Amino acid sequence: MNKSFLLTLLAEVQRGEVTPEAATERLADLPFEDIGHTRIDHHRSLRTGLPEVIYAAGKTPEQVAEIFARMAAAGTAVLATRATPEAAAAVHSAVPAATYNALARTLTLSQAVPCSPFPVPCICVLCAGTSDIPVAEEAGITAEHFGVRATRLDDVGVAGLHRLLAVRDQLAEADCIIVCAGMEGALPSVVGGLVGVPVIAVPTSVGYGASFGGAAALLGMLNSCSPNVSVVNIDNGFGAAYIATLIARSAHRGKV
Amino acid sequence: MNKSFLLTLLAEVQRGEVTPEAATERLADLPFEDIGHTRIDHHRSLRTGLPEVIYAAGKTPEQVAEIFARMAAAGTAVLATRATPEAAAAVHSAVPAATYNALARTLTLSQAVPCSPFPVPCICVLCAGTSDIPVAEEAGITAEHFGVRATRLDDVGVAGLHRLLAVRDQLAEADCIIVCAGMEGALPSVVGGLVGVPVIAVPTSVGYGASFGGAAALLGMLNSCSPNVSVVNIDNGFGAAYIATLIARSAHRGKV
Amino acid sequence: MNKSFLLTLLAEVQRGEVTPEAATERLADLPFEDIGHTRIDHHRSLRTGLPEVIYAAGKTPEQVAEIFARMAAAGTAVLATRATPEAAAAVHSAVPAATYNALARTLTLSQAVPCSPFPVPCICVLCAGTSDIPVAEEAGITAEHFGVRATRLDDVGVAGLHRLLAVRDQLAEADCIIVCAGMEGALPSVVGGLVGVPVIAVPTSVGYGASFGGAAALLGMLNSCSPNVSVVNIDNGFGAAYIATLIARSAHRGKV
Amino acid sequence: MNKSFLLTLLAEVQRGEVTPEAATERLADLPFEDIGHTRIDHHRSLRTGLPEVIYAAGKTPEQVAEIFARMAAAGTAVLATRATPEAAAAVHSAVPAATYNALARTLTLSQAVPCSPFPVPCICVLCAGTSDIPVAEEAGITAEHFGVRATRLDDVGVAGLHRLLAVRDQLAEADCIIVCAGMEGALPSVVGGLVGVPVIAVPTSVGYGASFGGAAALLGMLNSCSPNVSVVNIDNGFGAAYIATLIARSAHRGKV
Amino acid sequence: MNKSFLLTLLAEVQRGEVTPEAATERLADLPFEDIGHTRIDHHRSLRTGLPEVIYAAGKTPEQVAEIFARMAAAGTAVLATRATPEAAAAVHSAVPAATYNALARTLTLSQAVPCSPFPVPCICVLCAGTSDIPVAEEAGITAEHFGVRATRLDDVGVAGLHRLLAVRDQLAEADCIIVCAGMEGALPSVVGGLVGVPVIAVPTSVGYGASFGGAAALLGMLNSCSPNVSVVNIDNGFGAAYIATLIARSAHRGKV
Amino acid sequence: MNKSFLLTLLAEVQRGEVTPEAATERLADLPFEDIGHTRIDHHRSLRTGLPEVIYAAGKTPEQVAEIFARMAAAGTAVLATRATPEAAAAVHSAVPAATYNALARTLTLSQAVPCSPFPVPCICVLCAGTSDIPVAEEAGITAEHFGVRATRLDDVGVAGLHRLLAVRDQLAEADCIIVCAGMEGALPSVVGGLVGVPVIAVPTSVGYGASFGGAAALLGMLNSCSPNVSVVNIDNGFGAAYIATLIARSAHRGKV
Amino acid sequence: MNKSFLLTLLAEVQRGEVTPEAATERLADLPFEDIGHTRIDHHRSLRTGLPEVIYAAGKTPEQVAEIFARMAAAGTAVLATRATPEAAAAVHSAVPAATYNALARTLTLSQAVPCSPFPVPCICVLCAGTSDIPVAEEAGITAEHFGVRATRLDDVGVAGLHRLLAVRDQLAEADCIIVCAGMEGALPSVVGGLVGVPVIAVPTSVGYGASFGGAAALLGMLNSCSPNVSVVNIDNGFGAAYIATLIARSAHRGKV
Amino acid sequence: MNKSFLLTLLAEVQRGEVTPEAATERLADLPFEDIGHTRIDHHRSLRTGLPEVIYAAGKTPEQVAEIFARMAAAGTAVLATRATPEAAAAVHSAVPAATYNALARTLTLSQAVPCSPFPVPCICVLCAGTSDIPVAEEAGITAEHFGVRATRLDDVGVAGLHRLLAVRDQLAEADCIIVCAGMEGALPSVVGGLVGVPVIAVPTSVGYGASFGGAAALLGMLNSCSPNVSVVNIDNGFGAAYIATLIARSAHRGKV
Repeated sequence: MNKSFLLTLLAEVQRGEVTPEAATERLADLPFEDIGHTRIDHHRSLRTGLPEVIYAAGKTPEQVAEIFARMAAAGTAVLATRATPEAAAAVHSAVPAATYNALARTLTLSQAVPCSPFPVPCICVLCAGTSDIPVAEEAGITAEHFGVRATRLDDVGVAGLHRLLAVRDQLAEADCIIVCAGMEGALPSVVGGLVGVPVIAVPTSVGYGASFGGAAALLGMLNSCSPNVSVVNIDNGFGAAYIATLIARSAHRGKV
Repeated sequence: MNKSFLLTLLAEVQRGEVTPEAATERLADLPFEDIGHTRIDHHRSLRTGLPEVIYAAGKTPEQVAEIFARMAAAGTAVLATRATPEAAAAVHSAVPAATYNALARTLTLSQAVPCSPFPVPCICVLCAGTSDIPVAEEAGITAEHFGVRATRLDDVGVAGLHRLLAVRDQLAEADCIIVCAGMEGALPSVVGGLVGVPVIAVPTSVGYGASFGGAAALLGMLNSCSPNVSVVNIDNGFGAAYIATLIARSAHRGKV
Repeated sequence: MNKSFLLTLLAEVQRGEVTPEAATERLADLPFEDIGHTRIDHHRSLRTGLPEVIYAAGKTPEQVAEIFARMAAAGTAVLATRATPEAAAAVHSAVPAATYNALARTLTLSQAVPCSPFPVPCICVLCAGTSDIPVAEEAGITAEHFGVRATRLDDVGVAGLHRLLAVRDQLAEADCIIVCAGMEGALPSVVGGLVGVPVIAVPTSVGYGASFGGAAALLGMLNSCSPNVSVVNIDNGFGAAYIATLIARSAHRGKV
Repeated sequence: MNKSFLLTLLAEVQRGEVTPEAATERLADLPFEDIGHTRIDHHRSLRTGLPEVIYAAGKTPEQVAEIFARMAAAGTAVLATRATPEAAAAVHSAVPAATYNALARTLTLSQAVPCSPFPVPCICVLCAGTSDIPVAEEAGITAEHFGVRATRLDDVGVAGLHRLLAVRDQLAEADCIIVCAGMEGALPSVVGGLVGVPVIAVPTSVGYGASFGGAAALLGMLNSCSPNVSVVNIDNGFGAAYIATLIARSAHRGKV
Repeated sequence: MNKSFLLTLLAEVQRGEVTPEAATERLADLPFEDIGHTRIDHHRSLRTGLPEVIYAAGKTPEQVAEIFARMAAAGTAVLATRATPEAAAAVHSAVPAATYNALARTLTLSQAVPCSPFPVPCICVLCAGTSDIPVAEEAGITAEHFGVRATRLDDVGVAGLHRLLAVRDQLAEADCIIVCAGMEGALPSVVGGLVGVPVIAVPTSVGYGASFGGAAALLGMLNSCSPNVSVVNIDNGFGAAYIATLIARSAHRGKV
Repeated sequence: MNKSFLLTLLAEVQRGEVTPEAATERLADLPFEDIGHTRIDHHRSLRTGLPEVIYAAGKTPEQVAEIFARMAAAGTAVLATRATPEAAAAVHSAVPAATYNALARTLTLSQAVPCSPFPVPCICVLCAGTSDIPVAEEAGITAEHFGVRATRLDDVGVAGLHRLLAVRDQLAEADCIIVCAGMEGALPSVVGGLVGVPVIAVPTSVGYGASFGGAAALLGMLNSCSPNVSVVNIDNGFGAAYIATLIARSAHRGKV
Repeated sequence: MNKSFLLTLLAEVQRGEVTPEAATERLADLPFEDIGHTRIDHHRSLRTGLPEVIYAAGKTPEQVAEIFARMAAAGTAVLATRATPEAAAAVHSAVPAATYNALARTLTLSQAVPCSPFPVPCICVLCAGTSDIPVAEEAGITAEHFGVRATRLDDVGVAGLHRLLAVRDQLAEADCIIVCAGMEGALPSVVGGLVGVPVIAVPTSVGYGASFGGAAALLGMLNSCSPNVSVVNIDNGFGAAYIATLIARSAHRGKV
Repeated sequence: MNKSFLLTLLAEVQRGEVTPEAATERLADLPFEDIGHTRIDHHRSLRTGLPEVIYAAGKTPEQVAEIFARMAAAGTAVLATRATPEAAAAVHSAVPAATYNALARTLTLSQAVPCSPFPVPCICVLCAGTSDIPVAEEAGITAEHFGVRATRLDDVGVAGLHRLLAVRDQLAEADCIIVCAGMEGALPSVVGGLVGVPVIAVPTSVGYGASFGGAAALLGMLNSCSPNVSVVNIDNGFGAAYIATLIARSAHRGKV
């Protein structure tokens, strides 16, 4: 509802082309679709530049399938995260072309129109250990859904520093770097000190005992001594990729 | 210590221009300066694209002044954060041209060479309440130190939504938005839903009782339902501005 | 055991109509019914204006069914919350007229005498996301059990502000507003700033990672910058509706 | 910015009495006053029925005095909470008629127009121990500022139950009850079981050791077994009184 | 290994009745029985006045059964707490006379010699709600195992104070009172204010949301404003009964 | 307000010796004294067997002095805990005979009538390290105030076990043992295993870093593997002594 | 990649025996093996003196089996910790000679070359209770895997001190002592005071209620008053044994 | 009190050289010195191989001075940690030869007899940032007090990895490495991966916001992915050095 839209509408009212009652109605009638349990925000793409994504956790398989189908019908590429196998089955029944990745728990549907008008931007998705891969994979698939190339670099934790140093060239090419790590969450600080781009740190719930479900990694990352590190919620690979996409695309916007 | 540097050095060794001993020495001799209590990382600018900044908390006024003077002597613009009045006095004795901002607790020194080669990028720094201004100001001064225009929008908390909606045009122009908020930390979620750029959320220690020194705001921001929000440490205006600078500059890099 | 009851009783003793022993007995014999594991508080309706409700969690299906049947036999409308399907089955065997809502986990029984003597008061029950609906539904059913009209407004979270602004008229008509939200729990603050009635905030355990089972939302709500927000326990839709009922009924008491 | 205001404005545009540009301006120009560090929300009274109150903590004495004077000049009664003696001195210089209560840390200014158009509603403010009085007093003064009679009942903690039972008649007359308690925070549950009106529980930071600054009382109150108890932030006497005022006034609205 | 035992032994050495080697051996050979995974402390009865009890949690059914049988063979009454149905089955195979209480999860075996030489002392075991009964029952069975009469008073929570006041006579007769409560854990404070004997408070894990597995009740009890309240671990009905037994027996020791 | 009192009163009403109005008054008029900020509970001695004690923290020196003087005037021995030097000065002005112990922060006044009618019972007060002495001393003085002999055993921490074993004879004579320990709080478990009487564990706030103000010791004690250990709040020497007094006196009651 | 290796390589470059390109390659080609999901660090043995160990938690049975087989093929002894029965089955299929210990959840494979060139060093592994044995057993098997003799001393908790004092001779012979304890975690402090070697404390998740999954034991151990105690993560028997091995082997290095 | 001492004593009793009474006395009379508030453990040196050290925090200057003087008089080298300037002044009056280090807050006294009979062992003490130096210095001085050479390596945090890699040769020579770090506490993991000796991690309280007084660093270190890392309490430089001393000395014991 930006200023020019408002000016146009008011000018139409002034010219008598639109009645005040209709204008009032139109101002209230913003583009979301109310399907009872959910208000699908088709408007988000306009407002934020990236299409809405379905967060499947806490929704029934039927709800996920219904929302997925509605969005697919709208012609956009669709992504659902945190999808259980049950939700995947329900979606497959409704939208057979959807793809399920059991590791990352994602459901995706590509559509005709490619997502990005820019030269393909690039991010790196690192994970500290093998157990962090599901979170990293959620991030990678999300970025690709938004048209960004996502290089995976797995099992490069700080206890064997040479594994990380061996991939420095790949780090140097990225517009933004996502680092997924559990346990002590030290990897973002080390990576942050090696590169000159933003690092999005994703604490994972990998660990045991005093990791307290990822809280230790989260606290470590928030206290990072590398100033280019910001943090998202525990296991939130999706959010990290969303932000990395915004950064990477913006870095290539001027080049078109 | 990238690959080309290594290749060049090894070629010199092969041609007998550099002895193996000297090469070994040179590989170890990375550009930091050891002044006893501190190892100044002059190399950071090369490695990360932004000069090192002095974190004054926990250092004696004498240590701050010594580091500040060394960095000033190296010809770069200098910034110290979390500086006490005592540290400011010590720095002023050593570097009279330094400027102290008591609200933001920053010490700055401009130098001849401007910091940014790009068209001036722009960020917004919002704060939810009057009490959050010191943190926002630390962010603003840091961004300006790095050559980024930083628009301040104070006291736009969510309990009076019209105050926020009144500044939507200014939000729309920014390459990145910093949101400083204490108490429940709800502002980043609301701002995140209104814009299409990354939002860096800075929880502040403003609040009382169950705010637990900013922990409530921190948790709120980490759980933001807006996917473009990432978070830095409590009261870390500097870190937020550092990341916002990287994002804003990268968005304008292609335009030069 | 109010003063007038005491005065009456003592007068009867003075007149010799009641012996001291019987009076002592009667003072001790307050109206609760001891059925072994539970002391049913039939007296609550007198004391607090609303009938007792069965909290089924932690009770065996048999215990729930027994208490439910006793209360049904007393002729009042009955409500059980947090009822498992097993408890529902046991209650159905004992009281076939009872209704089970699997989403809200409530068991209800309407009886002949309507609950409220007042013009029907009205509350709104908002929830931030689809996953918060079970808690909101527990609140809605509870309010209706107490004779209050409860308008549901689902999926109006702050990341898409226009969805909330679209229901402002409905908010304006309510005597009290219940807001159920997980994750960062920002919705009550925003709603609180829009209305002039009390807002009862219900943190939900919806979320993951650093939501810590609803603690993040709880802390956010307790630190709300809107002064008309008070908070109940995580997922406590029942409690919120109980309080909202008291407020809404009191607002209409004078109008009878 | 309600619907009728919008309809009126649009009708004026239609009739050519207002240009679209001016209307746009007016829609954006909501009634807050920007004085640099703060945006005073004169509009709040319209929107929420109660005038804005100054939260003095975290503001400089000069800021408090400036806001206080502006609001006083607007002709409304003024209340500042959490005011230090320094802030009080600054306000007195600017507004000599202001009154400071050092125990409750409040600054008040009465003005000609009385606050409430209703028959005087009534609340009770209880505190469990002598040390809780400052919080209770903040609540009491706030309620009176809003035109509500506030009966104080101090030192009625649960370890000497007869002290509480002795004031039951006073409890029975209140439209809403505020209970301030530190330590284990048990008082609201007990009071809640005795009355049929909403109880607003205010945990206080009174206690030591495992009270963890009021967290123990806060948790106790959130887990209250009395369903008519809702909770505000630790030491938030102001917020409790704000809500109690809304409830008590609404209970008397119909009687005018 | 008290002083008199040592003196006797040393005198025997002096008289040549015991060699130094044998004495050394005997001093090392304290009365515990090493059965591989466990060192059964038969000596505890001597040292602390009450026989050892088997804590079955974390032990395999086989381990529980083996320890139970060994202790039964030693002729003492046996008690195992936190026993699963599987452990109960294993014990029944080995010691058919053992009794299992599924609610309290206890296994007991009475033996010929009665446990207590004193006139039967008496305690009360209160619980706030029906859901706290398993913990209270563990306490009651434990006390009876140690020869103490344990009066149960269930469902006397503070939200219906008259239920508690109705049992005051029974409270007045007890030598020690155990109070089991979850949620806000307010009951011990109220009971503590009514009686003149020690109150052992047992927080239970009953509750939801911000009860955090009993932590809220625990904190409440630790901060009790009644000075005669001490606290044991969450759900530790056994420990409470152990201490209550020591207190109640000691109160009757002089009367024999 | 026990049953016999009620029967007597009612009989007087029946006989016409007391009017119903007067009886009602008398039932409400329980013996506490309302001095504005505080309701002194003279009745406590009757109800719980031990006189009320002044908790001075959070009260002004004037309040402490006023309460102290009132209680002194009532002829009972008086004890105030957590008294600051300022409170001590105020009390001395009002009651010159009062004694201040700066280490334990206690104010005491002995009076003619001795506190205990029993043969002098005995407790031990242990502390793990020199820094725990203030808490132990608060416990010791409190016990003596209530007529109990309190043997102090300082600096007997578990890292030098022989220091503890050297005082076993003294432990063996006590009716109850208080153990004050900070840091890891291990001492109560070790002591609990050596004796057959109740152990009251007092966590102290002594320690640093991860002791978190005594929370580590508190948790340790709550999880004690010795079943005769119960716990009071951090630094609550007074509470421990209160309970130990009840236990020790009861153990000697029968011997009179 | 130590200095001498670098000097040798550079000398070869200088002599023309190695081209700069090959040298660059070799420097980058550090000895880890990338098998997709995991980078096996064969180099660790060189760098840290002990071979890499497989942490099976969070890996699929197939991943565990693949890594196990690769390491077995490299000829070294292999150890996997936290292995589920499913992982054990998968490993057995691939490497039939592997041994599974279901209690300790370890998979081991001995190979021809013995692990240690030193005289067999010795450690003690204590556990406080029977339930701590799985953690202790993980420690014992790990130490033996590394060629260290590991004496187990089970069920020697502090509540029965004589059980611990009975094994003092065995403690005296160890080069390092591992102490596994849950609940209050007091055992390391007591052991630490008895011996003159480092004590590695392993908090276990054994306990209930306020043990909070081992946090109570962890905090206790971190606050140990015995200065020779250091701590590893909750249930981390492997880590404790790894460190104890380093200490014990170093103590015997000079004796070869 | 080892076995041979016991055998000798008992043989003396058998031979009539020592009476049973005297032997009993001697067994109880272990070598500590009771000076009222403190029991000095002269026996510790015998028992643990290192002399007792004074922990000055929580003791009055007079107490520190008295203990320091007593230990000095016993002829051993003396160390006091956490000494305030006031304690230093008091010690200087009593023992003029004592040395105070204000940064590390240590008081030391060397004496004629050197502490270590071994070839000088060597440790490294690293700190991540300048602000961690006080903790590192406490560690260094403690190690030197015990006869161990302690190489300091300051300001080698992970955000500038080349600073750490530059000191690898020095790390390689140490028998044990102490790493002091605040903020995210990542340094021990990185160091642990580079070396083959035990790493003692010391979290420091350096940091702000979500460092929560060192808790973030502590959790990070406990969750270290390097298995040779164990942890001591926050800021506990003394403890780390104590353990490192035991390890380093043991590594050189065989070489004498």
